[in-house]
Amino acid sequence: MEKERLFKEFGIEPLDEKIFPIQKRNELLLKRKLFIGCRGKDLLKRIFQDGEKFYVLTGIMPSYEKIHLGTFLIIEAMKFFQDISEINVVLVADVESFLTRDVTYEEARKYALEQHIPAYLALGLNVDRTIFYFQSENKDLIKIASDVAREISLSTFRGVYGDLSVERILASIYQIADILFPQLVKPLHGIIPVGLDQDPHLRLTRDYIRKTKTFNFKEVAGIYVDALPDLVDPKEKMSKSRPTSAIFLLEDEKSIGRKIKKAFSGGGATLEEHRKKGANLEVDVCYKILRVIDRSKEFEKVVEEYKSGRMLSGEFKQYTFQTLLNFMKDFKEKFLYFQDLVKRREINLIKGSDDLKVFLKI
Amino acid sequence: MEKERLFKEFGIEPLDEKIFPIQKRNELLLKRKLFIGCRGKDLLKRIFQDGEKFYVLTGIMPSYEKIHLGTFLIIEAMKFFQDISEINVVLVADVESFLTRDVTYEEARKYALEQHIPAYLALGLNVDRTIFYFQSENKDLIKIASDVAREISLSTFRGVYGDLSVERILASIYQIADILFPQLVKPLHGIIPVGLDQDPHLRLTRDYIRKTKTFNFKEVAGIYVDALPDLVDPKEKMSKSRPTSAIFLLEDEKSIGRKIKKAFSGGGATLEEHRKKGANLEVDVCYKILRVIDRSKEFEKVVEEYKSGRMLSGEFKQYTFQTLLNFMKDFKEKFLYFQDLVKRREINLIKGSDDLKVFLKI
Repeated sequence: MEKERLFKEFGIEPLDEKIFPIQKRNELLLKRKLFIGCRGKDLLKRIFQDGEKFYVLTGIMPSYEKIHLGTFLIIEAMKFFQDISEINVVLVADVESFLTRDVTYEEARKYALEQHIPAYLALGLNVDRTIFYFQSENKDLIKIASDVAREISLSTFRGVYGDLSVERILASIYQIADILFPQLVKPLHGIIPVGLDQDPHLRLTRDYIRKTKTFNFKEVAGIYVDALPDLVDPKEKMSKSRPTSAIFLLEDEKSIGRKIKKAFSGGGATLEEHRKKGANLEVDVCYKILRVIDRSKEFEKVVEEYKSGRMLSGEFKQYTFQTLLNFMKDFKEKFLYFQDLVKRREINLIKGSDDLKVFLKI
Repeated sequence: MEKERLFKEFGIEPLDEKIFPIQKRNELLLKRKLFIGCRGKDLLKRIFQDGEKFYVLTGIMPSYEKIHLGTFLIIEAMKFFQDISEINVVLVADVESFLTRDVTYEEARKYALEQHIPAYLALGLNVDRTIFYFQSENKDLIKIASDVAREISLSTFRGVYGDLSVERILASIYQIADILFPQLVKPLHGIIPVGLDQDPHLRLTRDYIRKTKTFNFKEVAGIYVDALPDLVDPKEKMSKSRPTSAIFLLEDEKSIGRKIKKAFSGGGATLEEHRKKGANLEVDVCYKILRVIDRSKEFEKVVEEYKSGRMLSGEFKQYTFQTLLNFMKDFKEKFLYFQDLVKRREINLIKGSDDLKVFLKI
């Protein structure tokens, strides 16, 4: 399996729930195995066992107006840490989306302020404890980025990214600068919850921290969250670039209904087989969705019924559909509230380390 | 000769004084041939003959506390254009000095505010009509730099700079962004007076302008000013990294006296030969210095006397020494005045295009 190869080849470690403090162990992300691995396990132990202070940071790539359900996993990870961290940071990677996806700065700004940030808040990010910034507006990133440029060689970049281009280099040194930016203001360790595809940036960042002579940066750890599968092809990831692969936040009932109907099922091929062998949850797309959004008491019972073959695929899909509708209804209310809040700029939207100092009362 | 090879190989054109408006033709830079060439001659014609509007822009590299006499040539060029331009821009290339000279942002800031900017103003840059910025503080540079990163390939950078590094790439895309920054606010042509060693950036900038699909940038032209020679070795340039090669602004009388005494002379090897053949001004360092700083009525007469062999090398050095002392005395007074002005921030120190709009009342 591709994931296992990645783990072995690049030294990603499995995440043991014992790393986390007892009161955190039962939360969704651990119980439902939404964390799939980490880089920097020793640091995570020091943070959670010795109480070392840390910030938690992730990014929004504003390359498309809509957000799909897969994004939700990163926000769940942020929520897992946000009450025990010193600073929560969500950056809008508009430089990266310009460089790699041809999204203008104006479009990125519009998507982020009207859609992404309100959605992140509606999904449970703490509005009072989280800071946001746009890469293109954070003037202090260049101070880290220029030091990264001195310490990481072209051949290292080529080793990590393969076929190299100037835009890939610039995007990469900005990403490393993002990961370390909070440390310009306060010396803290960092926990960076991201998708597995972001691991190269974490590797480069950890290398750079060891090399820099300009800054005294503390170590950071990556925590990798699972991805949701493509609705019809569970070998692929749900992707905003293939609308049929994804369910989008605010998608309408009819469209959701159609997509769930077509979703790849782990149920038996025939009724007989299903009753006998039950469902294969490993490939069942509805199960993967429910695992993320269903907080009801029925969740475990329903899944057990389906797995055992007592509940049929159609019934399970119907349950998933209904859960999704309830989820969307609840989401929409909150989304509209936060959209208005962002419009009034009643969020912590900063422009650099001076603003971060004010936020932290330093 | 190295210079001629450069001209031929890279297509730098000689500067014909007829390009400039009549009232400008007699100024020092033309009469004394301090402009040695240009790139974009057609554009210069359109600017000066058809009256197209333009900005003039150059940079300070804050890699060393002191400034030497050679710097004066760039400021003379800025002064040549500053009253007929729409905007005068001097940027402090602190990102570049960090990347390529290991100067911290704090050092660069100190050098620029306490030494370089006051010196530029003392030498005659118009304080009311000139804007300054630090690369590291101008958040709008990244918007141009990221577009440059998309349009210029690694192999093009390699072709221009030879052995390539990540810091060289980042410095280069920031330089291109600097050259075009004023156009984020106002569509104007640009005239960029710099040393011949900066021509690669101009070439890349002009290439990039033709390629970009994001911005509608207007063409820019480079005007290359001569360099002052090393005091003792006229084949080398005066350089801040070799203190014996240069006379520094605010240098004391004794030290100037010593250096002028040792300066390479174009006078004859013997008194007899000097009386017969006269002095070779092409290699005479004192002549090169006088050509820049001497505004007195005697200048042409003294030079003629020396060239003909009637005036001796020792006498010519004495005249140069005295002229330098007067120049330094006058400079020091103005420098202290502007140092104080900069300290009170009574200069146009901007942080990006919003500030530039305010300055231009747009």
